[in-house]
Amino acid sequence: MSVHAQAQAQAQAPTAAAQATRAAIIDTAERLYRTLGYQKTAVADIARALRMSPANVYRFFPSKAAITQAIAARILDGLEAAAWAVARGPGSAPDRLRALFRLLQEQTLALFFDQRRMHDMVAAALTEHWGIVAAHIGEIDAAFRHIVADGQAAGVFAAIDADEAARMMHGACVLFTHPILVQECQDTKDLPQMAARMAEFCLRALRPDC
Amino acid sequence: MSVHAQAQAQAQAPTAAAQATRAAIIDTAERLYRTLGYQKTAVADIARALRMSPANVYRFFPSKAAITQAIAARILDGLEAAAWAVARGPGSAPDRLRALFRLLQEQTLALFFDQRRMHDMVAAALTEHWGIVAAHIGEIDAAFRHIVADGQAAGVFAAIDADEAARMMHGACVLFTHPILVQECQDTKDLPQMAARMAEFCLRALRPDC
Repeated sequence: MSVHAQAQAQAQAPTAAAQATRAAIIDTAERLYRTLGYQKTAVADIARALRMSPANVYRFFPSKAAITQAIAARILDGLEAAAWAVARGPGSAPDRLRALFRLLQEQTLALFFDQRRMHDMVAAALTEHWGIVAAHIGEIDAAFRHIVADGQAAGVFAAIDADEAARMMHGACVLFTHPILVQECQDTKDLPQMAARMAEFCLRALRPDC
Repeated sequence: MSVHAQAQAQAQAPTAAAQATRAAIIDTAERLYRTLGYQKTAVADIARALRMSPANVYRFFPSKAAITQAIAARILDGLEAAAWAVARGPGSAPDRLRALFRLLQEQTLALFFDQRRMHDMVAAALTEHWGIVAAHIGEIDAAFRHIVADGQAAGVFAAIDADEAARMMHGACVLFTHPILVQECQDTKDLPQMAARMAEFCLRALRPDC
């Protein structure tokens, strides 16, 4: 390692430690939101759980809202990575569409069902961090569009506007993927089947024109 | 009028008066829910606005929950009547479907947008009076099914399961008709176009098979 590289590594060492602390704060905050509740969790609680001072937490995040934003971004990043893995995966375009409907339904249920304490955090994210949510919606739309375009290239889907088809299919998923609806839902056992049925209905819309 | 009929009319007179009082209680409660807020409105407030005693209100409704249920039922009855008027109205089956998508979107917006105070009442209806909401969903499904069956009889829609197609189309409407989502929505100006686009996408699913 050159002297220059050593100096660089030393300069980056605090950054790596800082990233670990940031991650620990996000982990702890998310755990407290899920157990104690979003509204009831104060920065002081997060600091206490980490055996650090609130002032130290504030060195990394200027506010509880900034922590919430980081949690929301991490959850949504994970969802997007999983969606792209399906969209770019093997299998026919129709089968990948079916898998994407299923994935979105399963992930939402896993993230938010029986996690009613997350309701307030989701509501806060929807109102205070709408930019992040809107970007997420756009990213999932793009994964749908990728599959539609693949199916059109393979001749199995009609040559309709792929953006529009993607937007409508993702819109139709709201029924079983919107965290607030899933949290309010009384019959989550029906949601997997609902996702599968909606996928088949949407695939009919993509049939090539006669 | 026969003596018997007169006796009957007299016996019914209190019932008509009772119905008028019931309606006045529901009207007043709904107005207070929309202005003061659902949580903040007590039976005592409703009684005071009507210049009657709380005990008199309780003669007609055993609880605030019973009043809420009556309000929810009345709102949903109005929506259902409007949906059936579209479903049984003139015009081709595709045009009636477009009109039903539009109606559901417009009615939800009119009933719940800028009425954030109604949020708690809707949430209460969804949890405490789910039976009424489920019956309403079934009724709107039936209006969709009526149009699908008409279109199938006319040969313009594919001979698929009409129940299933109706259920999926109504499910796709959740995006722009669920009161909680519409209340959370940041861009309600886009909702009419979203309803129109979703109608066209769903109509593609109904195209006859080649």
